[in-house]
Amino acid sequence: MAVSSEQIKELRERTGAGMMDCKKALEETNADIEKAVTYLREKGLAKAAKRAGRDTGEGKIISYIHGTGKTGVILELNCETDFVANNSDFEALGKEIALQITAMNPLYVNEESIPKEEMENELSIQKALLEKEGKKAEQIEKILPGKMKKYYSEICLVHQASIRDNTKTIHELVQEAIAKFGENITIRRFARFQVGGQ
Amino acid sequence: MAVSSEQIKELRERTGAGMMDCKKALEETNADIEKAVTYLREKGLAKAAKRAGRDTGEGKIISYIHGTGKTGVILELNCETDFVANNSDFEALGKEIALQITAMNPLYVNEESIPKEEMENELSIQKALLEKEGKKAEQIEKILPGKMKKYYSEICLVHQASIRDNTKTIHELVQEAIAKFGENITIRRFARFQVGGQ
Repeated sequence: MAVSSEQIKELRERTGAGMMDCKKALEETNADIEKAVTYLREKGLAKAAKRAGRDTGEGKIISYIHGTGKTGVILELNCETDFVANNSDFEALGKEIALQITAMNPLYVNEESIPKEEMENELSIQKALLEKEGKKAEQIEKILPGKMKKYYSEICLVHQASIRDNTKTIHELVQEAIAKFGENITIRRFARFQVGGQ
Repeated sequence: MAVSSEQIKELRERTGAGMMDCKKALEETNADIEKAVTYLREKGLAKAAKRAGRDTGEGKIISYIHGTGKTGVILELNCETDFVANNSDFEALGKEIALQITAMNPLYVNEESIPKEEMENELSIQKALLEKEGKKAEQIEKILPGKMKKYYSEICLVHQASIRDNTKTIHELVQEAIAKFGENITIRRFARFQVGGQ
C-alpha cells in the first residue's frame, strides 16, 4: 500500500529510525503508526542488544530539585561520545529519569546493585509467605520468579514503570534512546536526598 | 568613643548581630570594624556551641552542575526551622558549599564519617613514615595529631579551607551562619558525581 511522506516523517520523529526503515515499517504494518513503532522498536532493540557491551565513558551529570527544595536527585547518565552527551534529547532523558527517581524513590539502579543479603532476605520472606499459603515446593519454584520480578519493579529504577507512560519501564525508555542515538546508554548511579529522610 | 550609626549598620549587615551588641562591640574595639567582627564572632561562636546540640530536622537539598555537566554535586544542609531553610542567605551558604565540594572533592563531611579502617590505615602510614624518619615514640605521639589534622583538612569537607576565603574553614563558615541565623546548622551529607569518575 501507499505510504505518505507525512507518515514517514511522523514515524521518524517518534523513533529516530532511518527513512527507508520507516517506509518499510509502515508498508509491513499497513501504515499503522503504533504497529510500525513496535516493529521498529523490536528492530531497534535488536540493535541495542548488540550495543549493550560497548563502553560508555562519556555522559552527563543531571540534577533535579523538587518544589521548595525538600527533595533532590542527582544522577550519572552515560553514553559513548560527547556528541550524544551534549544532545538536548539526551539531557531530556536524564531529566525524565531524575523526575522518576524523585517521584518513585527507587533504592537501586538495577537488580545487580541490590546487596546480596537484602536479595536473600527478600527471597526467604517470599518463600515463607508462599509456604504459609500452603504452596508446595514445586509450585513455589514456579511462583517465586514472578514475586521477585514484582519486588524488582518496586525498588529498581530500571524496572519501574515510567511515571510519564506506565506502559513502559525505565529500561525500555533507555532502550528506545539507544535505538535513537545509535549508542549504548547506561544509568550509572543516582542519589536521592530528602530533608530529614534517608 | 563615639560610634556612628553607619558603623553599627555595616557591622549588623556583616554579622547579623543585634544593634546593641554591635554598638558594644564597636565601643570595645575602638570602632575597628574588623576587630568588632571578630569580637562578635567570638560571642557568636559561644552561642553556636550551645546550639550545636539542637535538632536540625529542617533544611534544603541543594545541587550544582558544573559547566558542561561533567561534574555535579548534591547536598543536604539542615537547620531547625523552615523559616531559616527558606532564607536566601541559607541557600547561598548551600550553594557555596556545593561549589567547594565541586572544586575540592572532599571524601567525607567530617572525621566522624571516615570509615574506621581508613582512619586506622592512615594512622599506621603516618606512624611508619615518622619511624622511617628516625623519630622516637614520644616525638611521634606529639607530631601525629598534626599529621592527622592535615589529613582531615584534605579529605573532610568541614576542615577544608574555603575556596572563597582560605583564611576560614567550611566549619567556620557554618559557625558564622549559626551565629547569624541563631539556629543550629549542619551539613548532613553530600554526593559528588563526575562522569566516568568515582
